[in-house]
Amino acid sequence: MAQFNRREFASLAAMLPALPGLRTPEDLEYAGGLTDIPGIRVGHFTHQRRPTGCTVILTERGATAAVDVRGSAPGTRETDLLAPNKTIQKIHAIVLAGGSAFGLDSASGVVQYLEERGVGFPTRKGPVPIVPAAVLYDLGLGDPSIRPDRDAGYRACQRAHTGPVQEGNVGAGAGATVGKMLGAGRAMKAGLGSAALRVDQLTVAALVAVNAVGDVVDPESGRILAGARSKDGKSFVDLAKTLRTTTLTGDPTSLENTTLGVVATNASFDKPAMQTVAEMSHDGLARTIHPVHTPFDGDTIFSISTGAVEGCDLGQVGALAAQAISLAVIRSVLQARGIPDYPAHSDL
Amino acid sequence: MAQFNRREFASLAAMLPALPGLRTPEDLEYAGGLTDIPGIRVGHFTHQRRPTGCTVILTERGATAAVDVRGSAPGTRETDLLAPNKTIQKIHAIVLAGGSAFGLDSASGVVQYLEERGVGFPTRKGPVPIVPAAVLYDLGLGDPSIRPDRDAGYRACQRAHTGPVQEGNVGAGAGATVGKMLGAGRAMKAGLGSAALRVDQLTVAALVAVNAVGDVVDPESGRILAGARSKDGKSFVDLAKTLRTTTLTGDPTSLENTTLGVVATNASFDKPAMQTVAEMSHDGLARTIHPVHTPFDGDTIFSISTGAVEGCDLGQVGALAAQAISLAVIRSVLQARGIPDYPAHSDL
Repeated sequence: MAQFNRREFASLAAMLPALPGLRTPEDLEYAGGLTDIPGIRVGHFTHQRRPTGCTVILTERGATAAVDVRGSAPGTRETDLLAPNKTIQKIHAIVLAGGSAFGLDSASGVVQYLEERGVGFPTRKGPVPIVPAAVLYDLGLGDPSIRPDRDAGYRACQRAHTGPVQEGNVGAGAGATVGKMLGAGRAMKAGLGSAALRVDQLTVAALVAVNAVGDVVDPESGRILAGARSKDGKSFVDLAKTLRTTTLTGDPTSLENTTLGVVATNASFDKPAMQTVAEMSHDGLARTIHPVHTPFDGDTIFSISTGAVEGCDLGQVGALAAQAISLAVIRSVLQARGIPDYPAHSDL
Repeated sequence: MAQFNRREFASLAAMLPALPGLRTPEDLEYAGGLTDIPGIRVGHFTHQRRPTGCTVILTERGATAAVDVRGSAPGTRETDLLAPNKTIQKIHAIVLAGGSAFGLDSASGVVQYLEERGVGFPTRKGPVPIVPAAVLYDLGLGDPSIRPDRDAGYRACQRAHTGPVQEGNVGAGAGATVGKMLGAGRAMKAGLGSAALRVDQLTVAALVAVNAVGDVVDPESGRILAGARSKDGKSFVDLAKTLRTTTLTGDPTSLENTTLGVVATNASFDKPAMQTVAEMSHDGLARTIHPVHTPFDGDTIFSISTGAVEGCDLGQVGALAAQAISLAVIRSVLQARGIPDYPAHSDL
């Protein structure tokens, strides 16, 4: 029998990839978030009667913004005005919500909240709040008549603060699930995640609600963290492999998706540059969700700049936006908690 | 001294991630390519006096096509007509070329070749060949007055065939390099790669010329295969980490990039669906190139359908297009050979 000494064993062990369920305790500590950027408040409203809700990102002093819609089944409001050539230069809030198209109603509550405080684009007849919004499909969980409405949006504003972003089964991530390509019975719970990266004066942060056809993968090891499970529920199917080996027939559950995100930076950029940041940030979804940007995902990421720091490198900010999105996606599954029929990573 | 038996050692060894330079021999065998799809011929012209050239993809029977430009510094020709609402439904060839904007001239040679054979969109005054093209920047290598011209495009057509796609330092990939974010002296050689995936009757294939600011990463292990090297040239810097730790100052070399690709399928889809395929295929670049889609990359991928197989799932085809792009990117660095100042993966 061959024998190996402790040093040989240790050098092998050091090369072991991270295993699912074996993320380090540091991954569960707060990794920063959108509120690390001064001028941004985040608030959630989470329904108690079924897993759904909305998340508001308040930038009442105004923020330069853009959006990139990369999935083929989006649900949005006030996104056309974000195009680089449109007149409006600053937005006052962004809303992410469950409830599919119905959930867009939550933005009306945010508009009301801002109007009451005199925040908005100045006009002769008073300020008009600019509040882009996007929704994800979570009507499959519980009573579909319960949706984030105008009142939910208003309450999310009342709860907004500058402290650490609450993650997991909250706000727009309350009803978020992943790995739905093979049907709801094989899926898992995901949720809302946030993360921030800092380089000298520059901060780039992200917030996501992950609700995807695909598996969530750790790009540092290639391993699946949450996704479609085998029939016995004990292992992952690996959807990337399934796509290479099986002709898809199309489960209707595969229509019930969409991952939503916001990337924010204190770097000062104009609308066209923020468009580049929004575009590059989707690479963070590509690296952590397999597959993503499908005809059944409405994947949408907003980018916002508070404009405090001049002279930053646009390529660096865009690349960090992608990295922050990747981290936030991973946190969205690590922080999620299981609900009936949808176990979470933490249940494995 | 602790001892471990052969079985314990073997079970540990089986969990080892792939190491750079330790790819298996199978990776170096032909992995299929664009010509696996009937109706597609591929031809390269490679200049002998400096590393540049062009690659033509001939679809003389006509192919439904789309394009997605995701980098911020593209160079293209005949891409507007690919928009879903434009009249032209079929293209007859695609050209990828080095030489920056000058290299677009090579498409004229392809148009001439097709006109001589009576191939094109029918008009009262004869067929008009439809030949979209995109270029990458490789003028930094050798005499910049040598560029793929009309004659190069014509000759690439003459050399086009249905056999295995030649990879490495050929055609549009002849002058392609990667890892340029920290300057040309730290970069490495990449080239042209191709790959194909088959599921029952469906085939999805890709061809790329990889010329990027970023590192090329194996997404199955997270390890860098080629990219920016340390000052002594003996290890990788890891640009993703550099972006998280260092304020970028901007090296002019970082402007000299752009990754070009074509994904092709025998699945029958219309122009809007092929737009989705082109969009999803960029996820393959995001998974293998870090960073990518930057302000200094003009990353452009064309999608083409020969239309032989009906009833395929669009999401599956798009997801496989992304996977085929990832494989082709990896092959583009594994098949590349080093040139003065630009070592290749095979030199490590």
